[in-house]
Amino acid sequence: MIIDKLYELAKERGPICIGLDTRLDYLPDYLNYKKDINISEKLFLFNKAIIDNTSDITACYKVQIACYEAHGIQGLQAYQKTLAYIRKKENIVIADVKRGDIFSTAQKYAQGHFSGDFEADFLTINPYMGLDAVEPYFPYLQNGEKGLFILTKTSNPSSKDFQELEVKGQPLYLHVARKIEEWGERFRGKYNYSTIGAVVGLTFPEEFIKIKDIVQHTFFLIPGYGAQGGTGKDLYRIFKDNFNAIINSSRGIIAAHKGLDETASFATITREKVLTMKKDLNQWQ
Amino acid sequence: MIIDKLYELAKERGPICIGLDTRLDYLPDYLNYKKDINISEKLFLFNKAIIDNTSDITACYKVQIACYEAHGIQGLQAYQKTLAYIRKKENIVIADVKRGDIFSTAQKYAQGHFSGDFEADFLTINPYMGLDAVEPYFPYLQNGEKGLFILTKTSNPSSKDFQELEVKGQPLYLHVARKIEEWGERFRGKYNYSTIGAVVGLTFPEEFIKIKDIVQHTFFLIPGYGAQGGTGKDLYRIFKDNFNAIINSSRGIIAAHKGLDETASFATITREKVLTMKKDLNQWQ
Repeated sequence: MIIDKLYELAKERGPICIGLDTRLDYLPDYLNYKKDINISEKLFLFNKAIIDNTSDITACYKVQIACYEAHGIQGLQAYQKTLAYIRKKENIVIADVKRGDIFSTAQKYAQGHFSGDFEADFLTINPYMGLDAVEPYFPYLQNGEKGLFILTKTSNPSSKDFQELEVKGQPLYLHVARKIEEWGERFRGKYNYSTIGAVVGLTFPEEFIKIKDIVQHTFFLIPGYGAQGGTGKDLYRIFKDNFNAIINSSRGIIAAHKGLDETASFATITREKVLTMKKDLNQWQ
Repeated sequence: MIIDKLYELAKERGPICIGLDTRLDYLPDYLNYKKDINISEKLFLFNKAIIDNTSDITACYKVQIACYEAHGIQGLQAYQKTLAYIRKKENIVIADVKRGDIFSTAQKYAQGHFSGDFEADFLTINPYMGLDAVEPYFPYLQNGEKGLFILTKTSNPSSKDFQELEVKGQPLYLHVARKIEEWGERFRGKYNYSTIGAVVGLTFPEEFIKIKDIVQHTFFLIPGYGAQGGTGKDLYRIFKDNFNAIINSSRGIIAAHKGLDETASFATITREKVLTMKKDLNQWQ
């Protein structure tokens, strides 16, 4: 099952997910101002250099589709090439699409992001519409090849607006966490974690501890490390000796070269940042 | 403001929104099996025939991006051409994308869907992440050119899973409705409706009446009519004499020709279905 592969890659290469939220202003000048290539090629060449320099020390990549949709068809051509390249390298790719829609529409999203041009290994999904907006992905999970990460408590300040509203004495996000554990029961792999994981931001460690107590078989995708404020210490408080998560860092890694000597290889700087992050997480390695 | 234009078009042409949730199996055989054109052209030619035959009797079109993402780059080329064609006809186009993400990511979605290849007039948005996931769209609303419809109570059965959970004695969706009214206060047009509207399914009329009591300046985008079960009678119970909404119908209109004599023009059948729907809604015309 894909969740087993992710678990093993996290153990082997490090529980790190590099977020390819690639923006034109992250590109080094020599690439951004190159005249004979279009936006699609620029975005892909940037991503390719990062992947080439980090794939042996990271479990997976999370590709934020919004950064590619922003550039229309050309942007999505870069998205397509990036996903294919990550899969060719035998890393895992998480399509950060946060989709959520009624059954017949979600079937189309599943088709679009689990096969064809935009095929990914995991998708992020929004829970607001409930179970029948998640079920259309189940046939792909059933055969072991694909997985989901469902938004639970997100890393942004306004996540309090609805996710923290109190329902039966507990915040809404705990009810979402319980449903994820329940929906995932039939999709557990050999390490006893489900192919339906949860997205929980590192920016609210106290909330994270409450979630962790409730969902014992759920693997976590954790944004909010680095540029958004979360640290290795926060992670240790949450996970102690049982680390079932991958930690995403985006601009803290892929934009680390900005403002430095850009004639040096930006991808080398990226690799150093990943190694620094691995050190910060070294209690589990 | 765009909400004023939508209000006027709804009065003038009818409060109807045709959902272009175009699937290959909706295409008449002569188009689906045509050999010398690709999927992109097939999907666009189908949509174009519908638009050409209905644009004078409908306020707007809602294009479900999932149906195009399902076909990768070619699908999105059809999506792009469909949006541009609707805007050229001076109808309003609602991109049914249901996006929702943190501030810096939502900025990219706003760029992607309010400008460039995929420019639309309104976007549908998911509220689960709260205000800072909605604010990045505000600059486009501020200048009067663009608008949002935010999911409130959706038309699918599982919308009960989270949207109906009780918070301070009221279901979650009423808290979302209140926030939409509050966020939209600064974006009201000349008819006193805000450019931030709400998506409320027609499949739960009792719930709709509760929402209607709370949000006095919010315009509604209503799915769930026709194939999903909602009727003109339900609408009359909800709106009585003050009809501030557009009603979406997708497969009830665009797939109406299936099983009939397909050598007849499918677009003519589509036009008849829209006229029948207008009759069903005639208390407001």
